[in-house]
Amino acid sequence: MSTIGIRGTFFDFIDDPWKHVGKEQDAARFHKDGLLVVTDGIIADFGPYERVAAAHPGIVISHIKDRIIVPGFIDGHIHLPQTRILGAFGEQLLPWLQTWVYPEELKYKDRDYAREGVKRFLDALLASGTTTCQAFTSSSPVATEELFEEAARRNMRVISGLTGIDRNAPAEFIDTPENFYRDSKRLIATYHNKGRNLYAITPRFAYGASPDLLKACQRLKHEHPDCWVNTHISENPSECRGVLVEHPDCEDYLGVYEKFDLVGPKFSGGHGVYLTNGEFRRMSKKGAAVVFCPCSNLFLGSGLFRLGRATDPEHRVKMSFGTDMGGGNRFSMIQVLDDAYKVGMCNNTMLDGSIDPVRKDLAEAERNKLSPYRGFWSITLAAPKASTSTTSSATSRPARKPISSRSIRTAARSPSRGISRSPPRAAGRARSRKRPTCFSA
Amino acid sequence: MSTIGIRGTFFDFIDDPWKHVGKEQDAARFHKDGLLVVTDGIIADFGPYERVAAAHPGIVISHIKDRIIVPGFIDGHIHLPQTRILGAFGEQLLPWLQTWVYPEELKYKDRDYAREGVKRFLDALLASGTTTCQAFTSSSPVATEELFEEAARRNMRVISGLTGIDRNAPAEFIDTPENFYRDSKRLIATYHNKGRNLYAITPRFAYGASPDLLKACQRLKHEHPDCWVNTHISENPSECRGVLVEHPDCEDYLGVYEKFDLVGPKFSGGHGVYLTNGEFRRMSKKGAAVVFCPCSNLFLGSGLFRLGRATDPEHRVKMSFGTDMGGGNRFSMIQVLDDAYKVGMCNNTMLDGSIDPVRKDLAEAERNKLSPYRGFWSITLAAPKASTSTTSSATSRPARKPISSRSIRTAARSPSRGISRSPPRAAGRARSRKRPTCFSA
Repeated sequence: MSTIGIRGTFFDFIDDPWKHVGKEQDAARFHKDGLLVVTDGIIADFGPYERVAAAHPGIVISHIKDRIIVPGFIDGHIHLPQTRILGAFGEQLLPWLQTWVYPEELKYKDRDYAREGVKRFLDALLASGTTTCQAFTSSSPVATEELFEEAARRNMRVISGLTGIDRNAPAEFIDTPENFYRDSKRLIATYHNKGRNLYAITPRFAYGASPDLLKACQRLKHEHPDCWVNTHISENPSECRGVLVEHPDCEDYLGVYEKFDLVGPKFSGGHGVYLTNGEFRRMSKKGAAVVFCPCSNLFLGSGLFRLGRATDPEHRVKMSFGTDMGGGNRFSMIQVLDDAYKVGMCNNTMLDGSIDPVRKDLAEAERNKLSPYRGFWSITLAAPKASTSTTSSATSRPARKPISSRSIRTAARSPSRGISRSPPRAAGRARSRKRPTCFSA
Repeated sequence: MSTIGIRGTFFDFIDDPWKHVGKEQDAARFHKDGLLVVTDGIIADFGPYERVAAAHPGIVISHIKDRIIVPGFIDGHIHLPQTRILGAFGEQLLPWLQTWVYPEELKYKDRDYAREGVKRFLDALLASGTTTCQAFTSSSPVATEELFEEAARRNMRVISGLTGIDRNAPAEFIDTPENFYRDSKRLIATYHNKGRNLYAITPRFAYGASPDLLKACQRLKHEHPDCWVNTHISENPSECRGVLVEHPDCEDYLGVYEKFDLVGPKFSGGHGVYLTNGEFRRMSKKGAAVVFCPCSNLFLGSGLFRLGRATDPEHRVKMSFGTDMGGGNRFSMIQVLDDAYKVGMCNNTMLDGSIDPVRKDLAEAERNKLSPYRGFWSITLAAPKASTSTTSSATSRPARKPISSRSIRTAARSPSRGISRSPPRAAGRARSRKRPTCFSA
């Protein structure tokens, strides 16, 4: 048994700041001089330095000065095989997919190409302080296999799955619903709950999914109810219209996923820029999550996610934030917060009546203001009843037992690396377990 | 006479990429292995290393590896006394001014506070690679004096002026048109064309200016036609309406400035988010410049500047880019380009007919795509017929004679510092002369 101490300034959350309007700091925990005691990778104690140090005499303490130690970030929506095309120029979603994305993702059939891509992807995430992600892969199983394998080697928490598409993409990129079903079954058996991996049944998006593909997803979800469902929803106006052309019997985008029983507490729909009020209400009722991806929504020009609508207290929708790299042009969740704030403020102006009095809604306008507390909570603890949460402090021992409700699980197989004083690298070296409500319901 | 060489990879512009649609690289100059020869702070030669080195045997050469050396950036719109409130939370323009800005800018009456603020401001600009700026100050002359003094000490190019306001602000912050006229006269006499300083007659914005204040500006411009005019225009919907309440005899925002003869080739209006097509056309005809400040327009939720409209080839408006720090939340012009691209892409979606067929305009939609060439040109050479332009390579000797059309003027009074290999610092140490058309007409 090995016990170490990390002394420094700590900031994290213990509750949902949206529940503490006007005193959001009550949702957070700040120790200017704190001590984190870690035994074999698990937090054994945490609190003010004076108290905690006295309770653990003789342990070796690393003192991290002039930094703030925060929990590892959670990226709720990101695309592994777009790592090498981040920043592709000048197209909205649908032509961007055809021009840049599908040709690149096709290359991930090659195992060496996929393996190298996975390493760059996870390195970039960790360098950005992100220790948990929900990731899309590609239409061939190779990328999914390589991602889960490498995530396991690093003991990172990754939620992912074979990304099914059988329409509106190049013939060599799509696959049949039968193959998708068969490959998904095999991947679930191999990787779901193996190590810290979790499997998400992943129809890419309704615009690229025939009813038969969605039926395969329905069957998979029925057979594996503990698997997640990850997809896209209502990202771009042309895409939204296309979905209703592909699925003319559905009234709206969410309706397509509802028709195949995919919308529930483990459902994540990325983007949701053009969700109607009714769709937000239905997602709220079903406990489904929307993933706000502001960098991407701006970079691809998709539009302004209605943050104030998603947070309507009467119909609040579970929400995580994502980079959507490579539609988003950064790996950093900090940059996501920058753009999220900006999207919110643009909505604020749209809803204050100064542009269009008919749209005036001061309460919703106000909810579009993403305070620092709301922001940092969204990319860390992420939901009121997170079952487990962690810090991103840089330790690297195997985890065994959770302490109180907040545990840290660190890389079982990586060598001990000590503490870096450079925050991006320190975060990058963290291997932490983190399960916000929207990923743990 | 001292001659040094800087070897490295260089990228800059020799023309306007908007004039080279489809082959924008023709507007740029790239030397993978280049040599810049600097004699007493002035570029004596520049080109491929092989050729240039052969022509200058025996000079001491600093080799900067693994970096790209680019011209110093130009920030067309920034607020010195907002340095300490960058990132102020949760308000649109008008309440943000009242809550955060005016109380802070008031403190710049104190010379020590102003002097310390100026140092932080210029340090932050240089650290971001910005070597030229057009800056607002405050309503008291102290901030303007301190800015010009410190800019002169650093031999930086700063365009600035006493920032007049006599309405819609706290009583202790506003001043009379008479005082504004008198103080501006004195500051022009003291600082305009002294060293590298240039003076801009600066009514803060029409919403804060009585007709008498604007008459004082008109008189100043008449008496000092070589001075610049710097102000704000059409930033926020509530502000735009307020302007027409304050100036009920004017048809639109630009009309207020036109009424007082301020709109001409040396006029800069920051923001222009809500400029009408007619106002864009009038600005184009008069050779006036608009300053695109996307970080600010997003951070304050002001709205989406119509980049594709400003670049209509039939009525093209001179344009520079600005951070508008502290409305903008960064000092970095690189971040401005990030947000400028995003604003452009959002406009692209608005104009492709997918949201509103009536607004469909594919040519304007296309012009909203800010390519890297268009972007870097906008923050460096900035206009087709720049009279003088420079690189930001880090030298620090006095300037004497320009070489060809591209000169570098460096800090006359600062000690020689050599070359930093860290690009932000290298840029930050540059002291370069740069006059794009929109600041040199």
